[in-house]
Amino acid sequence: MNGYLQVYTGNGKGKSTAAFGLALRARGAGLKVAIIQFIKSMDYSEIKILKQIGVELFQYGRGCFIKGNPVPEDQEIAGEALRKAGDLFEYGETDLVILDEINVAHYFKLFTDDALLRLVESKPQDLELVCTGRYAPDFLIEKADLVTEMKEVKHYYKTGVKARDGIER
Amino acid sequence: MNGYLQVYTGNGKGKSTAAFGLALRARGAGLKVAIIQFIKSMDYSEIKILKQIGVELFQYGRGCFIKGNPVPEDQEIAGEALRKAGDLFEYGETDLVILDEINVAHYFKLFTDDALLRLVESKPQDLELVCTGRYAPDFLIEKADLVTEMKEVKHYYKTGVKARDGIER
Repeated sequence: MNGYLQVYTGNGKGKSTAAFGLALRARGAGLKVAIIQFIKSMDYSEIKILKQIGVELFQYGRGCFIKGNPVPEDQEIAGEALRKAGDLFEYGETDLVILDEINVAHYFKLFTDDALLRLVESKPQDLELVCTGRYAPDFLIEKADLVTEMKEVKHYYKTGVKARDGIER
Repeated sequence: MNGYLQVYTGNGKGKSTAAFGLALRARGAGLKVAIIQFIKSMDYSEIKILKQIGVELFQYGRGCFIKGNPVPEDQEIAGEALRKAGDLFEYGETDLVILDEINVAHYFKLFTDDALLRLVESKPQDLELVCTGRYAPDFLIEKADLVTEMKEVKHYYKTGVKARDGIER
């Protein structure tokens, strides 16, 4: 099976959620799936259900959203996440790797263009790679086989709704 | 918990997949989840994994994509699917209901505007309802709390790649 590079980007909801849906489908087909999380951390309930269906999960987020200049600690953690992805490419026998919020980590300069490009170019041919997060850089879109922009048309958050367990988080 | 009406539409990939990802997250949080499928039918492997995580699945698709004028048989089946959704609203104690490809079923006139509007308006306040599929009608977008358009930026299908088990289906 040939594997491709998919990018889910844009300002709308459903980017990580679509990637998790893909993880679910792939597990159903018996594929080996790993998720590497940049930036965000997950709820315990999400971690539990992903483990239940046999998804490998590697978390490198500190849970807080980065704004402004990158902190060396965040860059170090993001570098580790990139190395983990490289290891999975090399040794993991993984069929589907999801790099969740990697686009945002790149946007906030947690690693260089070059580091991201090198990683993507080292993807084994038969591995499906999914990069999520708003602000996907042009060079990644250029390299990708499939790019979907999740575009916000309407959002109730704007009228003051808070995140709800099991729906937004 | 207040429930909302979400719509995933547009010509890009990830609409149903995002809805399934939401189903996964909701199950992780212990919510009761049902998926009603209009038009499409699922692969055995998808059905298996959704059942494994405890999602209720109701299939009303004939597996073939409808083109042109609606066939009475398809309208009958779609009507049954709408009634099932109404039943879930009324008796189901379901927290999240996903009406997969309902927008497409509406577009191909498998039921009237009125039938869809009545269903959506009968949604219990605490139930989260997700309608997926391209061609979401304006009146549904108007009613919705959250609308995301999945926009195709780039798609390898156009260069002749076939659907792959566990990734596209």
